[in-house]
Amino acid sequence: MTTSLPASAQPASPRGLPSPLGLHRVLDPPGVLPQAAWRLDPSPAIAPDEIRVRVGRLNLDAASYRQLRETYAGDPGKIRAAVLDIIATRGKMQNPVTGSGGMLTGTVEEVGPRSPLGLKPGQRIATLVSLTLTPLVITDALARWDGLSEQVPCEGHAILFARSIAAVLPEDLPVPLSLAVMDVCGAPALTSRVVTEGAVVVVIGAAGKSGSLSAAAARKAGAAKVIGVVPTQAEAELLRDPTATQDPLVDEIVIADAREPVGLAAKVEQAGGPADVTVVCVDAAGCEGGAILSTAQGGTVIFFSMATSFSAAALGAEGLAADVTMLVGNGYVPGHAEFALDLLRTTPAVRSLFERRVQE
Amino acid sequence: MTTSLPASAQPASPRGLPSPLGLHRVLDPPGVLPQAAWRLDPSPAIAPDEIRVRVGRLNLDAASYRQLRETYAGDPGKIRAAVLDIIATRGKMQNPVTGSGGMLTGTVEEVGPRSPLGLKPGQRIATLVSLTLTPLVITDALARWDGLSEQVPCEGHAILFARSIAAVLPEDLPVPLSLAVMDVCGAPALTSRVVTEGAVVVVIGAAGKSGSLSAAAARKAGAAKVIGVVPTQAEAELLRDPTATQDPLVDEIVIADAREPVGLAAKVEQAGGPADVTVVCVDAAGCEGGAILSTAQGGTVIFFSMATSFSAAALGAEGLAADVTMLVGNGYVPGHAEFALDLLRTTPAVRSLFERRVQE
Repeated sequence: MTTSLPASAQPASPRGLPSPLGLHRVLDPPGVLPQAAWRLDPSPAIAPDEIRVRVGRLNLDAASYRQLRETYAGDPGKIRAAVLDIIATRGKMQNPVTGSGGMLTGTVEEVGPRSPLGLKPGQRIATLVSLTLTPLVITDALARWDGLSEQVPCEGHAILFARSIAAVLPEDLPVPLSLAVMDVCGAPALTSRVVTEGAVVVVIGAAGKSGSLSAAAARKAGAAKVIGVVPTQAEAELLRDPTATQDPLVDEIVIADAREPVGLAAKVEQAGGPADVTVVCVDAAGCEGGAILSTAQGGTVIFFSMATSFSAAALGAEGLAADVTMLVGNGYVPGHAEFALDLLRTTPAVRSLFERRVQE
Repeated sequence: MTTSLPASAQPASPRGLPSPLGLHRVLDPPGVLPQAAWRLDPSPAIAPDEIRVRVGRLNLDAASYRQLRETYAGDPGKIRAAVLDIIATRGKMQNPVTGSGGMLTGTVEEVGPRSPLGLKPGQRIATLVSLTLTPLVITDALARWDGLSEQVPCEGHAILFARSIAAVLPEDLPVPLSLAVMDVCGAPALTSRVVTEGAVVVVIGAAGKSGSLSAAAARKAGAAKVIGVVPTQAEAELLRDPTATQDPLVDEIVIADAREPVGLAAKVEQAGGPADVTVVCVDAAGCEGGAILSTAQGGTVIFFSMATSFSAAALGAEGLAADVTMLVGNGYVPGHAEFALDLLRTTPAVRSLFERRVQE
C-alpha cells in the first residue's frame, strides 16, 4: 500500500508544532526544506504525526556510491568510514559531492497517533522519498557492509514525516523485484492518467523498466495501439514476450535512434503513428525533438527521463510549431507503487522483462 | 493574425516533394531538421507551400550578440563581417558558438499556392520561429547596421516553410511593443488553456512581460484570485497600476524570494493560496521547489522560465510528495500572438507595464 497525505496538507506550521514536511527537524540552516538542509535532527523521539522506522538496508544512489568508490580508490574500509561520517555529521545520508541520497527498507517501529500515512508497527516498508531528506541514525557502524556495492545492510533508525511517501513491501514478490518496480512507479501512474480510450501511444525505451510498465499502463488505460521504440535489435528481442503465450506488451516495435527526430518520426508513422501520447523513458540526452515530432498536433509528451533538457523541449516544440502538451514526469502520484506492482502481477510480459532485468 | 499549420501536418514527405518542416532545404548534414543542420539552401525560388519574405530587420538573440561583441572586442566592422560570414556560410543566422539565432521582421513577397499560413504579399510580419531554422540571404552587406546592438536593419530574403509560425504586425501598435508581446506570447496562451473558472492563480514574476500577460490571461479565464509574486518593492510598485483608475492586474502582491520555498509558500498562503495554478515567469534558477510548494495538491505548475531545471522540478515534486501536474511551457500555441496582443489592447495595466518595460 502506498500512503500519502491528504490534499489539504500545507507546508507552513506555527513555530513549535511539527511540520508535515519536517521543517522542525532542520537544524542548519534554519528555515530551509529538509532536502536543502546541511544538517537534520535524527532524534528517535517522534512527533505526533511522525513515524520511526527500524532500518534494515540502505540503497545508495548509484552516482553517490560511484563518487565514494572513486574517491577512496575502492577501499571498503574508507568507503564505510566516509558513509558513517556523512550520516553522523548531517543526520541524513546525502553525499555532499553529488547531492544525492538513495532509499531505504526497514520495519515500522513506532507510529505517531496523528500520522496520516496509514502504516502499522511491524510492517516492512520501502521509503519512496529520498534519503536526502530523511533523518537517519546508524547504530551498527555498518559492520555488515562489505563496501563493495551500493546495497548497505545496516541497523539504525529513520524518521518519516506526515508528508512522506512509503510503500509496504508485498509478501508475494521478492524484495529486489518490488524495489525495482517502486523505483520507477511514477511513470506508469502518470501514463495511466494521461492516456484515454482509443489513443495511439508511443513509448520510447519500451524495453526498460519504466518503459515496459508505461506500455502496460497505456494498454490498461484503453490505448488502441502501443508502439514501443527501442534502440537495438537486442532490446527488441527483450521486448518480445519470449514465451509468446501471452498478449504482447506492445503492438508494434520500432528500432530507431530516438536522438534522430526525422528518422524516428518517419518510422513511428510507418508503425501507425503519430502518437496521441508519447512517453519518454530512455535515459539518453537529446530525445526531445524526436518525441515531439512523433506526437500528433494536440497530443501529449510525458518526459520521464532525467536526461531531459527543459530548454530543448520548450524550444524544440516552438521550432517545430508543435502544439503539444509537455509534462514533467512527476515521480509522485498517489497510489503509484501499488498500481505499478499490480501491473507487474497482472502482466506476464512485464514480469518476465523485470525478472530478466533484475538478474542482470 | 497568427498563422499555423492544421493538425494533420506530419514531418515526413516523399523524396523530392517539399517538407512542411523544410527538410528539403537541408544541405548538410542530410536528413536532420533545419535547426540541427550546419547549412541550409536559402535559394529565393519557393516550393508550392513556402513563402518568401523581404527582410527588413534581424533581432539577434541576446546571448549570440554578446558572444560576438566579446569575441571581436566591440569592433563594429569585425562583428558585421562575422554575421555576414555566418549567414553566407550556413544559409541561416545561427551563431555557431551559442547555437542561438533570433527573429526577423519583414514584408511578405511571394506566397506559394499551397502555403497554409494564410499570409498575403505586402503584409508586414514577424517570424515567431527561430532564425536558427530560417533560410536567409543578406544582399546589402549589412551596410546600415552600426554593429552596436542586436537590432540589425538589413536587406535580403528569408523562406518560411508550411510549418512555420509568423504573425502579422498590427497597424495599431508600435512595432517594438508588438515584438515585445510576441516574444512572450506563449505564456498567456497556455495559461489561458490551463486556468479554469474560480481558480486561485499564483504568477511568479508577475511584473515582467510574460508574467503580466499571464496574470491578465488568468483573469480573463475566470480566475477567482490572482496573486502576483515579485522579488522587490520596486517591482511591486511597477505591478501596481500607476493610474489606479483601472482594475488592478492582480488581487494580491507578494514580495518574496521565489528561490526560498518555505518562505514563499508561507507568504502565498497568507495571500490566499495555495494555488490551483502556478505560473513561473522569472528567469532565475532554483524556483522549482517554491512553485511546487505554493501549489495545492492536484494543482498545476506551468514553467515558462528557461532557467527551469527539469530534474529539480521532477525530483522536487517527488521529495515534497506533491501531486501536481507540471507543464513545460511550450512557446507555441495556435493563435498565441493574436491572443497576447488582444490582452495588451484590452488590459490597460498590461499596456502601461509593457510601455514602461519597453522604454527601459
